[in-house]
Amino acid sequence: MARTCSIANALEVIGERWTLLALREVLLGNRRFDQIVQQTGASRDILATRLRKLVEVGLLERRQYELHPPRYEYHLTETGQSLHTVLLTLMDWGDRHVTQGPPPTVLEHSCGEVLRPKVVCEHCNEPVELGDSRAVRLGGQPVER
Amino acid sequence: MARTCSIANALEVIGERWTLLALREVLLGNRRFDQIVQQTGASRDILATRLRKLVEVGLLERRQYELHPPRYEYHLTETGQSLHTVLLTLMDWGDRHVTQGPPPTVLEHSCGEVLRPKVVCEHCNEPVELGDSRAVRLGGQPVER
Repeated sequence: MARTCSIANALEVIGERWTLLALREVLLGNRRFDQIVQQTGASRDILATRLRKLVEVGLLERRQYELHPPRYEYHLTETGQSLHTVLLTLMDWGDRHVTQGPPPTVLEHSCGEVLRPKVVCEHCNEPVELGDSRAVRLGGQPVER
Repeated sequence: MARTCSIANALEVIGERWTLLALREVLLGNRRFDQIVQQTGASRDILATRLRKLVEVGLLERRQYELHPPRYEYHLTETGQSLHTVLLTLMDWGDRHVTQGPPPTVLEHSCGEVLRPKVVCEHCNEPVELGDSRAVRLGGQPVER
């Protein structure tokens, strides 16, 4: 049986290219269907399906902004908003290891410097390095020391 | 034309469920094909294709560990290793927002506490919050102030 895992669970919800790219656009403030189509390059059918699912699972909310004809905007719920650090670390990895040339997207942090994300331990604030942690529970089972 | 973006670029390489789950297993130290099949639940065919691509794009290295019959293990390259913070933030999001019940995987940081990742600005070390940064470059184009 496959390992029980929150990465696998998360991918059930957001593990699809157009889903993540749609969320990226809403995070950037592009909330309307046509904008999201244009900026992601998704087909209208695929995008409609993905947005519907994102509303169903509670990552997006659909709000009407025009009555005649009825038109809707997509807004992030709190759960959707909390994905921004996942997308930021993914973008940073893409900048460093996949994209040729300079980063296409550059964000400036409120401190005035270019935002590069660093992942630290919430407790000690030290950067998380590979190999400086060990599993004490894995797939729902305690790990023997 | 779709936005030029390192998230989209990254997803070209790792934006597929079985690819990320295979990388998870190698990060956990399960380097052999049969182990990865068992723990991910991927079909052998799909997994073989995904592993081959990960070697091609330089995230994994294949090393022979047995001569007769020839058998191989998968090891992370530096680029592959640097994905661990992406997977960690994704797992944390899954723990908090998708998985029902307690987190299936618990890591202990070298500081002795349970590892919960926090994303901070590399420059000022303040936690990255949604809305405290602005794009100065987007899709390869400068953003007007």
